Amino acid sequence: MRAKKEIIVMKFGGTSVGDTDKIKRVAERVIKAKEAGNDVVVVVSAMGKTTDELIDIASKISLEPNRREMDMLLATGEQVSIALLSMAIQAKGYECVSLTGSQAGILTDEVYSNAKILNINNTRIMKEIRNGNIVIVAGFQGITTSGDIATLGRGGSDTTAVAVAAALDAKYCEIYTDVDGVFSTDPNIVIEAGKIGKLSYEEMLELASSGAKVLHLRAVEFAKKHSVVLHVRSSFNDNEGTWVMDDSKITEKMERPLITGVTYDMNEVKVSVFGLKDIPGIASKLFGALAAENINVDLIVQNVSERGIATISYTIKTEDINLAKALLDKLKETLGFLDYNLDPDVAKVSIVGAGMQTHPGVAARMFEVLANNDINIEMISTSPIRISCVIRKDKVKVAVKTLHNSFKLDN
Amino acid sequence: MRAKKEIIVMKFGGTSVGDTDKIKRVAERVIKAKEAGNDVVVVVSAMGKTTDELIDIASKISLEPNRREMDMLLATGEQVSIALLSMAIQAKGYECVSLTGSQAGILTDEVYSNAKILNINNTRIMKEIRNGNIVIVAGFQGITTSGDIATLGRGGSDTTAVAVAAALDAKYCEIYTDVDGVFSTDPNIVIEAGKIGKLSYEEMLELASSGAKVLHLRAVEFAKKHSVVLHVRSSFNDNEGTWVMDDSKITEKMERPLITGVTYDMNEVKVSVFGLKDIPGIASKLFGALAAENINVDLIVQNVSERGIATISYTIKTEDINLAKALLDKLKETLGFLDYNLDPDVAKVSIVGAGMQTHPGVAARMFEVLANNDINIEMISTSPIRISCVIRKDKVKVAVKTLHNSFKLDN
Repeated sequence: MRAKKEIIVMKFGGTSVGDTDKIKRVAERVIKAKEAGNDVVVVVSAMGKTTDELIDIASKISLEPNRREMDMLLATGEQVSIALLSMAIQAKGYECVSLTGSQAGILTDEVYSNAKILNINNTRIMKEIRNGNIVIVAGFQGITTSGDIATLGRGGSDTTAVAVAAALDAKYCEIYTDVDGVFSTDPNIVIEAGKIGKLSYEEMLELASSGAKVLHLRAVEFAKKHSVVLHVRSSFNDNEGTWVMDDSKITEKMERPLITGVTYDMNEVKVSVFGLKDIPGIASKLFGALAAENINVDLIVQNVSERGIATISYTIKTEDINLAKALLDKLKETLGFLDYNLDPDVAKVSIVGAGMQTHPGVAARMFEVLANNDINIEMISTSPIRISCVIRKDKVKVAVKTLHNSFKLDN
Repeated sequence: MRAKKEIIVMKFGGTSVGDTDKIKRVAERVIKAKEAGNDVVVVVSAMGKTTDELIDIASKISLEPNRREMDMLLATGEQVSIALLSMAIQAKGYECVSLTGSQAGILTDEVYSNAKILNINNTRIMKEIRNGNIVIVAGFQGITTSGDIATLGRGGSDTTAVAVAAALDAKYCEIYTDVDGVFSTDPNIVIEAGKIGKLSYEEMLELASSGAKVLHLRAVEFAKKHSVVLHVRSSFNDNEGTWVMDDSKITEKMERPLITGVTYDMNEVKVSVFGLKDIPGIASKLFGALAAENINVDLIVQNVSERGIATISYTIKTEDINLAKALLDKLKETLGFLDYNLDPDVAKVSIVGAGMQTHPGVAARMFEVLANNDINIEMISTSPIRISCVIRKDKVKVAVKTLHNSFKLDN
């Protein structure tokens, strides 16, 4: 009988396993964690640009490939990396076994290309751990109840890692990436951006949903729901990264800043629907139709109605622009509005921080900073720990820089 | 209720699905078979050189990759091609579904990289056929009872196709390849080589096992065992190919030639073990040890023993040469023989034909032809419908040409 060790889950993205040399480096890192006395489960993405290459090949065959077949195709990317990483670890003399999403017991719904994890049957993973194996699990993929392969959509490997960590009751889940952790803003725009030491799930969720790309939104939601402690860190060095955990576990609350981070999202389109009859249920019909087409809506603003006629504005993601246009052309008749407009030249700037809950006046200060820089605010949205403004795209850099500086985030 | 149609199985190799244009051509061919009123199941290999490329990547990570992990890696090759072919067929408006070996119910043993099909559970394939789908099955792969991916070894897609045809009670199994069918000998050596119209399983087996590369040996054995009619034909034209079927079904027996084909195999190494004690059981120990290492032995000759000392010669495949050397070094002590020699400069030339069963003197004529061309015969092996001679490698072309001509096979 082996003494029961603590399980840690390590997740490596596509850039970390981009070629065979990088895979060998990941193998060393995994072995170090094993040697430190842990049971180790590793979740990996497809190598480098593999997924994009597969999508490209598929596009040469079909303009609108069937999503089930697309998932069948894309799932091979992770299958290649788990096999190679397992070989690399075995080559260094350690026991290791790779498992596809299906073999790892990752059960999903049937929304191909954007499936959700329903459940993880951890029997096989636990068996392999008991046998002394390092276990390598394919990220981004699972199996439906009918036995078909489904993928979780872009960034899904983070979700796999967190879900596996939850299913194994792991000590924590490490997300290895090409940056040192979560930053107070994009260092490409603000050279003074600094790494955040600890974050609550709520803050991480707001940062991720408002534009920070380091963690997949669904992964953080999953982590929050199952209280999985996350450690976002670099795969290129041994530096401590950013810890994401339950707000109650963050002890240094007193010292926490008013604002934790400034984010932006260029991938926004502002849709304005003019001349809508202001009758009960009209908004529900409009957004119900958008939801039915799986078009995600972000900010929503409804104007004061004049003579029973309303204007509703909302933002959608750039990739949904054609779908939204087709839908609005159809809805114009059935809902009976006058016209609509799609404006892709907008972007969203947000400030996020648990500290603002106990400090009034943060929103006012944000609006003031933007006004002082001649930046017009077109839409506003708030949550208890976030304030977002939709502005012109070409004003984003100035907005992010001055907000970062004004809220004393400069390193 | 759909009227029950006859099922045909079509198998396309790697060169037939080498790029997206070729995949589209295969899709057209499959649709033609469906339009002709059949239910169609397609088995495909990995695209072009994919398998070799994957082996190459693995070799950069490990000199001796674990076979289970290797199968995990290689199985992705077919998974890519089934997804793409399914998309190509769907793009032309036909219902289609792709299935991995696991999903298609192909159960194998656990001899990774060289697994045997134990059974096919046809439930899923039949369900998809009943739903009106063209079904695309990944060749070369299956699943073990423990749920691990195993591959059937090189050429295994032929075996998959035949096994699927047997499990579905298909009308016939078409093997699409880059040649027009089975030829009386290698057209690269003998320009007068001609396509054979019909062959018995036994003849095909002898041709395949003695060097003809058009069909995988195990596939033919499987076809014989389950009476699956094979049609080997070109994927580049509509010409009738070569039919392989039960001897009793071949009606034109009267016209069948004495010899059906001349084959050769350059991939042979002659092993001679000198100074073996000629005691009962010694050969069994030697060949038992070879079998335990999975080294396939082809021809065996044991010399007349002098003073209780014997020499045993046998041939093995070139790829097993290092394995055989290591084993013989070990056996030298335990079996107690004097020395051994490995000679890679040999090759095997064979003549095959059901006709020789009723015509004595065929062997004598073969030896005479070789002798007339100054070709020394080092080893001989025969079956009821085949005669094989091991000769020097550099004599192979002359041997094949003159045998083909002497036995009136020139077109």
